[in-house]
Amino acid sequence: MPNSSEESPATLDTGSIVRRKRDGHVLTGAEIAHIARGAADDSIDDAQLSAFLMGTFLRGMDSAEVQALTQAMRNSGVQLDLRRPADGSAPHPTVDKHSTGGVGDKTSFLVAPIAAAAGLRVPMLSGRALGHTGGTLDKLETIPGYRTTLSPAEIRMVLDQAGCSIVGQSADIVPADRRLYALRDHIGAVESPYLICASIMSKKLAAGLDALVLDVKTGSGAFLPDPAVSRFLARLMVEIGEASGTRTAAVLTDMSQPLGRFSGNSVEILEALALLRGERNRNSDDLRELSLLLAGWMLFLAGVSGTAQEGRARAESLLADGSALRRFEQMVALQGGNLAALDHKPAQQRVLHASRSGFVFSMDTTSIGWAVQGLGAGRTQLGEPVSAHAGIELHAKLGGQIRAGDPLCTLFADDANRFPVPESMIADAIVIADAPPRPIPLVHEVLTRDSLTQTPSLQD
Amino acid sequence: MPNSSEESPATLDTGSIVRRKRDGHVLTGAEIAHIARGAADDSIDDAQLSAFLMGTFLRGMDSAEVQALTQAMRNSGVQLDLRRPADGSAPHPTVDKHSTGGVGDKTSFLVAPIAAAAGLRVPMLSGRALGHTGGTLDKLETIPGYRTTLSPAEIRMVLDQAGCSIVGQSADIVPADRRLYALRDHIGAVESPYLICASIMSKKLAAGLDALVLDVKTGSGAFLPDPAVSRFLARLMVEIGEASGTRTAAVLTDMSQPLGRFSGNSVEILEALALLRGERNRNSDDLRELSLLLAGWMLFLAGVSGTAQEGRARAESLLADGSALRRFEQMVALQGGNLAALDHKPAQQRVLHASRSGFVFSMDTTSIGWAVQGLGAGRTQLGEPVSAHAGIELHAKLGGQIRAGDPLCTLFADDANRFPVPESMIADAIVIADAPPRPIPLVHEVLTRDSLTQTPSLQD
Repeated sequence: MPNSSEESPATLDTGSIVRRKRDGHVLTGAEIAHIARGAADDSIDDAQLSAFLMGTFLRGMDSAEVQALTQAMRNSGVQLDLRRPADGSAPHPTVDKHSTGGVGDKTSFLVAPIAAAAGLRVPMLSGRALGHTGGTLDKLETIPGYRTTLSPAEIRMVLDQAGCSIVGQSADIVPADRRLYALRDHIGAVESPYLICASIMSKKLAAGLDALVLDVKTGSGAFLPDPAVSRFLARLMVEIGEASGTRTAAVLTDMSQPLGRFSGNSVEILEALALLRGERNRNSDDLRELSLLLAGWMLFLAGVSGTAQEGRARAESLLADGSALRRFEQMVALQGGNLAALDHKPAQQRVLHASRSGFVFSMDTTSIGWAVQGLGAGRTQLGEPVSAHAGIELHAKLGGQIRAGDPLCTLFADDANRFPVPESMIADAIVIADAPPRPIPLVHEVLTRDSLTQTPSLQD
Repeated sequence: MPNSSEESPATLDTGSIVRRKRDGHVLTGAEIAHIARGAADDSIDDAQLSAFLMGTFLRGMDSAEVQALTQAMRNSGVQLDLRRPADGSAPHPTVDKHSTGGVGDKTSFLVAPIAAAAGLRVPMLSGRALGHTGGTLDKLETIPGYRTTLSPAEIRMVLDQAGCSIVGQSADIVPADRRLYALRDHIGAVESPYLICASIMSKKLAAGLDALVLDVKTGSGAFLPDPAVSRFLARLMVEIGEASGTRTAAVLTDMSQPLGRFSGNSVEILEALALLRGERNRNSDDLRELSLLLAGWMLFLAGVSGTAQEGRARAESLLADGSALRRFEQMVALQGGNLAALDHKPAQQRVLHASRSGFVFSMDTTSIGWAVQGLGAGRTQLGEPVSAHAGIELHAKLGGQIRAGDPLCTLFADDANRFPVPESMIADAIVIADAPPRPIPLVHEVLTRDSLTQTPSLQD
């Protein structure tokens, strides 16, 4: 029988590694690297990889194991170093923001140009619609001509000129994650903080960042609705990021209602543009506030502001003076997009009216997210096109007072046949009561390396 | 989202079922049947099936789930009814014995002909060498001409004439188990009492039995060395058997040393034949005693003896008067075997001598089993031939007094190059001490339907 705690790669046996994880043992770095390598080069088959993922889902990992998995996944593909300009001059402070996924979450379109306007480089490698949440790339592609697939040289050129570039992740970055994620989705092992951490951090660290701000969602619209699990994931990601030499903060933010006024594709770009142009709307205030706070942490961690609070103030002035807007317009133009051609003329719209008077008391945000996807904003199969104009506008947010018959939500779609199911879902998802709910803070907690005084544990 | 607790097969979704097991929910019969069907007809892929198996390994099942899995697996293939003779006359009391696997375990060659001599039908569908344990079919095939692959009609003919038939299981019996077992082996999900129970009982119940005696091994040579887990498995199998209308008893027996005097292939047939012929040897006494006890329970459960004790006495007389021997000879002849041609002339043998004087204090029986396989009795790849003559003879058993230099064990192989590793393994596996060990009872406990007053639990 092979000794599976042996460090030498010559003795590594996939079956023994899976059994050791099954039995709750801590795996060595060499064992974890063997699994990540086997996922990337297909030398481990689906059966054993699935057993490893399910075993890890149920048995968990300690920080060192998650760190080893993250590094091994990162090493499975190419490493970008986008910090250095194309002219070969000195590396530039490089920063990114990543969200664990929410409904109506369009902070990327604000924080990337704000940080760029502050003199930072922001190479933001983003994703597509997933589950009940929208996709940053799908939203940007509603700008006619906008290209989300750029070569590393093109990304570097956009960063040199605009300071920020929001693009898709190329296939050669962390190939292990592509296979592991597809299997996790197939077998039901997605919602594991250990596996989520390794998946996110391996991709973010492969981009070569000085600083990273993580927006970890909690509440009814989050992938991990349990606040304890969200907080555990946040700490784990801060720990892994800092151990890899990237200054990392995780902001635990509320997702008990969609973020901002609109959820969908082009409507989200338009809402972000309005804020970049200095326009205000009561129902966009949460989006604006969260974007400034995240940008403040980006500026602080990247060293251009003395505190996150100073960073927030700087972000607000960069928004107010139009410099963030100019960065966004530059980025879009450099990536081939024509902002002037962006429209929002959905073929069909329908207004959902409040069935009673009272206060907006709660929202099932996941259900609202599925309704938005059902209107056409998401896809039911990989590779399917999404509808540019599908989405919703909320006319009231949590705590808002409303009278029976007032418009509660407007639905947009290309085809009126899309309305009935999402309309019922949204009507069920928004609860109106006689009294307002207790206010929920937009930001629950910010975790940084100073929060890591003890080993994170789900039992915290 | 599909409602996965829905009973209607139309809504059954493999992903939801796997997630429900992952989260520790109790699955419905329809959900479990969906998995077993998908395993048999390949409509569920390896990834999801592996995740289900690993989830079940770690989350467990309740009795109703194990019962549903057993029935669904049984229903995945053909059902034999071997109780009825070929002439169509009334069904005959039909009984079987199954062991969870041990070293030197050759009780089948005694209990099958004893029960046949008592007037019962014994259709014994057996397996091949697995892990550190030998295979009943591999042992029987050392009898020149013995055929282990018979059609159902041929098995019925052997049963009509000899009363017992020891044969291989055909591919159309429980096809779901073939796939599930191969995956469990591949991903490291073998040692689960829930999955072992369903695997064993689905195959045994597919043969259509009135009574079944299970020999569940515990101790250093058992697949499940933890006595609590063995006992849990035993109770689970009794519960599932009785719920299916088959009288079932499980005997928890000691496997802290090889059973009897010889372990290997032809040597085990010869040891059983000696007992059938009425010859006695001190080192075969445990084998003889266990065989009589198991046969006694078979006779009692099948209704031909009033108690298991009476059954044991009857078994002893059927052994003493040669009627069991005649049944064995008849079975071998009907299946094409020539007992007169059975020899034991290994090309090579080597004697391991005791390194010190004292008492045989303990044995690592699993290690001894691997050594026997290493001598050539087992295979390293499916389909490989095994060596007929490979094996060992123990000259002393637990508690036996021995002097330095006395023969402790004789090793047999076709090739002297086979000796060094197994010899060292056996020398390490047998511990000699100044004092004898505390005697270990051969039978720890017998579980029957009367023992099932509470729901079995691993926490018992």
